[in-house]
Amino acid sequence: MSKVIDFRTDPSQYRHWRVEYDGPVANLFMDVDENAGLFEGYQLKLNSYDLGVDIELADIVQRMRFEHPEVKVVVMRSGKDKVFCAGANIRMLGGAEHAHKVNFCKFTNETRNTFEAAEDDSGQKYIAAVRGACAGGGYELALACNHIMLTDDSSSAVSLPEVPLLAVLPGTGGLTRVTDKRKVRRDLADVFCSIEEGVKGKRAKDWKLVDEVIPNSKFDDTVQQRAREFAEASGKADVEKGIALTEIKREITDSAVTYSLVEIAMDRDARRATITLSGPDAPAPADMDAFTAEGAEAYFLKLARELDDAILHLRLNEKELGLLVFRTQGDPEKFLAHESLLMANKDHWLANEVLQYWKRLLKRIDVTSRSMAAMVEHGSCFAGTLAELLFAVDRSYMMEDEFEGDNRPTATVTLSDANFGPYPMGNGLTRLETRFLGEEDRVGELSSLKGKALEADDASEAGLITFTYDDVDWEDEIRIFFEERASFSPDAMTGLEANLRFAGPETMETRIFGRLTAWQNWIFNRPNAVGENGALQRYGTGLRGDYNMQRV
Amino acid sequence: MSKVIDFRTDPSQYRHWRVEYDGPVANLFMDVDENAGLFEGYQLKLNSYDLGVDIELADIVQRMRFEHPEVKVVVMRSGKDKVFCAGANIRMLGGAEHAHKVNFCKFTNETRNTFEAAEDDSGQKYIAAVRGACAGGGYELALACNHIMLTDDSSSAVSLPEVPLLAVLPGTGGLTRVTDKRKVRRDLADVFCSIEEGVKGKRAKDWKLVDEVIPNSKFDDTVQQRAREFAEASGKADVEKGIALTEIKREITDSAVTYSLVEIAMDRDARRATITLSGPDAPAPADMDAFTAEGAEAYFLKLARELDDAILHLRLNEKELGLLVFRTQGDPEKFLAHESLLMANKDHWLANEVLQYWKRLLKRIDVTSRSMAAMVEHGSCFAGTLAELLFAVDRSYMMEDEFEGDNRPTATVTLSDANFGPYPMGNGLTRLETRFLGEEDRVGELSSLKGKALEADDASEAGLITFTYDDVDWEDEIRIFFEERASFSPDAMTGLEANLRFAGPETMETRIFGRLTAWQNWIFNRPNAVGENGALQRYGTGLRGDYNMQRV
Repeated sequence: MSKVIDFRTDPSQYRHWRVEYDGPVANLFMDVDENAGLFEGYQLKLNSYDLGVDIELADIVQRMRFEHPEVKVVVMRSGKDKVFCAGANIRMLGGAEHAHKVNFCKFTNETRNTFEAAEDDSGQKYIAAVRGACAGGGYELALACNHIMLTDDSSSAVSLPEVPLLAVLPGTGGLTRVTDKRKVRRDLADVFCSIEEGVKGKRAKDWKLVDEVIPNSKFDDTVQQRAREFAEASGKADVEKGIALTEIKREITDSAVTYSLVEIAMDRDARRATITLSGPDAPAPADMDAFTAEGAEAYFLKLARELDDAILHLRLNEKELGLLVFRTQGDPEKFLAHESLLMANKDHWLANEVLQYWKRLLKRIDVTSRSMAAMVEHGSCFAGTLAELLFAVDRSYMMEDEFEGDNRPTATVTLSDANFGPYPMGNGLTRLETRFLGEEDRVGELSSLKGKALEADDASEAGLITFTYDDVDWEDEIRIFFEERASFSPDAMTGLEANLRFAGPETMETRIFGRLTAWQNWIFNRPNAVGENGALQRYGTGLRGDYNMQRV
Repeated sequence: MSKVIDFRTDPSQYRHWRVEYDGPVANLFMDVDENAGLFEGYQLKLNSYDLGVDIELADIVQRMRFEHPEVKVVVMRSGKDKVFCAGANIRMLGGAEHAHKVNFCKFTNETRNTFEAAEDDSGQKYIAAVRGACAGGGYELALACNHIMLTDDSSSAVSLPEVPLLAVLPGTGGLTRVTDKRKVRRDLADVFCSIEEGVKGKRAKDWKLVDEVIPNSKFDDTVQQRAREFAEASGKADVEKGIALTEIKREITDSAVTYSLVEIAMDRDARRATITLSGPDAPAPADMDAFTAEGAEAYFLKLARELDDAILHLRLNEKELGLLVFRTQGDPEKFLAHESLLMANKDHWLANEVLQYWKRLLKRIDVTSRSMAAMVEHGSCFAGTLAELLFAVDRSYMMEDEFEGDNRPTATVTLSDANFGPYPMGNGLTRLETRFLGEEDRVGELSSLKGKALEADDASEAGLITFTYDDVDWEDEIRIFFEERASFSPDAMTGLEANLRFAGPETMETRIFGRLTAWQNWIFNRPNAVGENGALQRYGTGLRGDYNMQRV
């Protein structure tokens, strides 16, 4: 690794965005510093973005929910005169290796999903106020907002010019949101995606590409008026003061990343990362006031933030660690006491935000393109929210009976209310519903096991665990699994897991990570896009791509 | 093109399959002739298959429905001793160019969907009677059957060894059917797909991989008994005699393929194929007896068979013709008279089969990876079933008002009952419902237009047409569209269309053609699978693939 990509940032470090807080309305300005790209070799002209720009946006969206719960409406706009956003930077894309392109798109997709869902989850509605060119990934930013306002002047237009200009797809949700969210008629969508210069004015509204078109002279006033109207109509409870998301502390060595509650141990030869999560030491806060006073130090929030950072770190910086192994150590009952406080106070804004954050984090794990396993060892703490990891990973192993010389408490799995609702997957089902697809009764029966610490036999009988082994077999079986998994083609694993993890219904979200992303990744491997004479390489030279004309 | 791949065949030409008809039960034996591969360079050992084997299977499944309507149960089995089917031939896959691999998988998928749906659509239930190794594509054949019976001996097992052995996916629906049809628990599916040798006996049943496991000594008897039971329980009406699917006649020249009712004109420089469908000359048959007497010469069936062959011919033999333009010429009223006979007699076995065939054919068009447009010219016949083409293509153009020197009847579009139910897309919606996603009322309102010949203004107003042009603009606009489309990257078009065409809900079928296929196509481009040292190339050499270990 040449350079470690760090997902931790804070407003004092922002180069590309600024936020003006105005009571229930936040004005969010995209104003990309073209000389502050994450890598060398390109300038971020015309509000184009790279991963660094998106890391800041993700941080803003997250802080908006925890630090600024008073905000009910966010107006996303440009800090530049003639352009809203030109989309992902093409030179960056042209120069990036395949794995970076794919991981970049995944993270931007997750960020867009996050602010799109902020209205339903937290009562924070995002408006895109579009003036100037809004192209490609720029329009995809707007598409993920809950309301799109376009100024009606001679130059402001929305467009998805990827296909004609770059021979790739609008792959950050654009195609899916055009058809499924905005319900643009499919033949008009086909036309729209073929027009480099995009669509403006009344036609943009008629085709459902935007919600409002407003004369330029009245644009700013109308945007502010709409923001106030939405804020007034909001059902979000008033909250005066948020909590500070203080810095996540970590130490990186060649073989480990160490946080306070999370530790990643990396075995590069075996291409495996073991992620150990610690249960809580202290008892649960007495009530939500106490929890709020702890703020970012509260166990349940701190664990989520550290695990989130750990997953992102591994995705972008440790691409050859193909297997993530989740371990926990701690007291399940104590963990459930912490969880219960939040579950019992779902209506409290901060309890809600912490649970919503776990929902997003678990979804991030679902779409992480690494083989994942969980080891339920003696002394482990797979209860409730942490048991959810067992249903997110590809398979799980559990210790059975006594292990010689191991005097930790016997391995157990404990279900709680957290496994039956608050953390739906992208497909809209809980992980247990997905696991037992077509066996709704069985999920109902499982709920009678809530609160019971199930040892290996019972957990296996209940279908919660893949394999259980005793002291005689454990070590060998785990070793064989590790070796087997490490021997497979990483690409085949990616495809396998992307299919097996998401049984059942599809939603806009799963379609974006499934159908759309898979086709984009395919195109990202094709010479017509990425070859020496492909469109991405030739962009800006005045030459079009030189295409192989066979249809596949 | 070196060799034209011909999809037309008949039992006298079969090399790989045979059928023994026994009243309501048909025994279908796969007995691949290893020396009769479609191309040079490989032998079809162990009942492995290539496109040629599948062309025969598709023909059998089709003839079963039209020529053998007395059949209620089809038992798919092996004609060889030790193997059910070893799946797609690996040397064939290793040697095939990317576009052929993809088209091969698409056609095999369509064939599997066809026999899987035969129970619901036509009352013909498929049983897989598995004895011997049933691996990869072999198990995918079984998965598409409605009931899987496995013999319990020391060697018979089902397996999906693609990932460990070949670094590709079980891409012919295997992963999707395991999770979504058979509802195998996802962690068990992960284990199953990692085990080269597969799963046999009781475990195969416990994991839901098969429906029955039967002692070897009782296997044949039990299979026949089960077939008789299913036949007796079948609700399919008794039909004594089918109709013969006589040879589809066509003439191929360098620039055209000419059938009786269908003509393909090919402009290779412009990379465009124009497909013209003729309306009926003769009046509609008086009743279904008359229709049955006409048999394969009946207009509605003949048109479908010719169009189906035309699409398949273009897909496999004309890969550089990236734009398919649909035209019709004929009398819309006369066409609707033919259609009405079938629609009014849906319960008649043959009317049902013809409509079901159109359903499949229209779905084949939906998933055809070419840009598609329709030209509604004066004298055209876009009514009912043929109007459905307007909603299948990516965009449509319609002539408005008089054209100088053109005295054909004014261009119209006419909706009928056929646009409101009998031809659902793979996503379960009609094409009009998909087109107007989220506007259910609008689809309801459109039904009041049934039977009205809508000229350009009205058709456009109703949202049925993308663009209408008069004599002044028509030629230029069409030319510009043709040139524009021909200039785009074929890969980007494939990805764009695969996303825009399937708005709304997903089904197992759309997931197979979307998520699963897109990932497989991605893998089919990756060096880990197809590179010089990739697994497909090294298969059979005793060496594993040499993999780049980065996860993407």
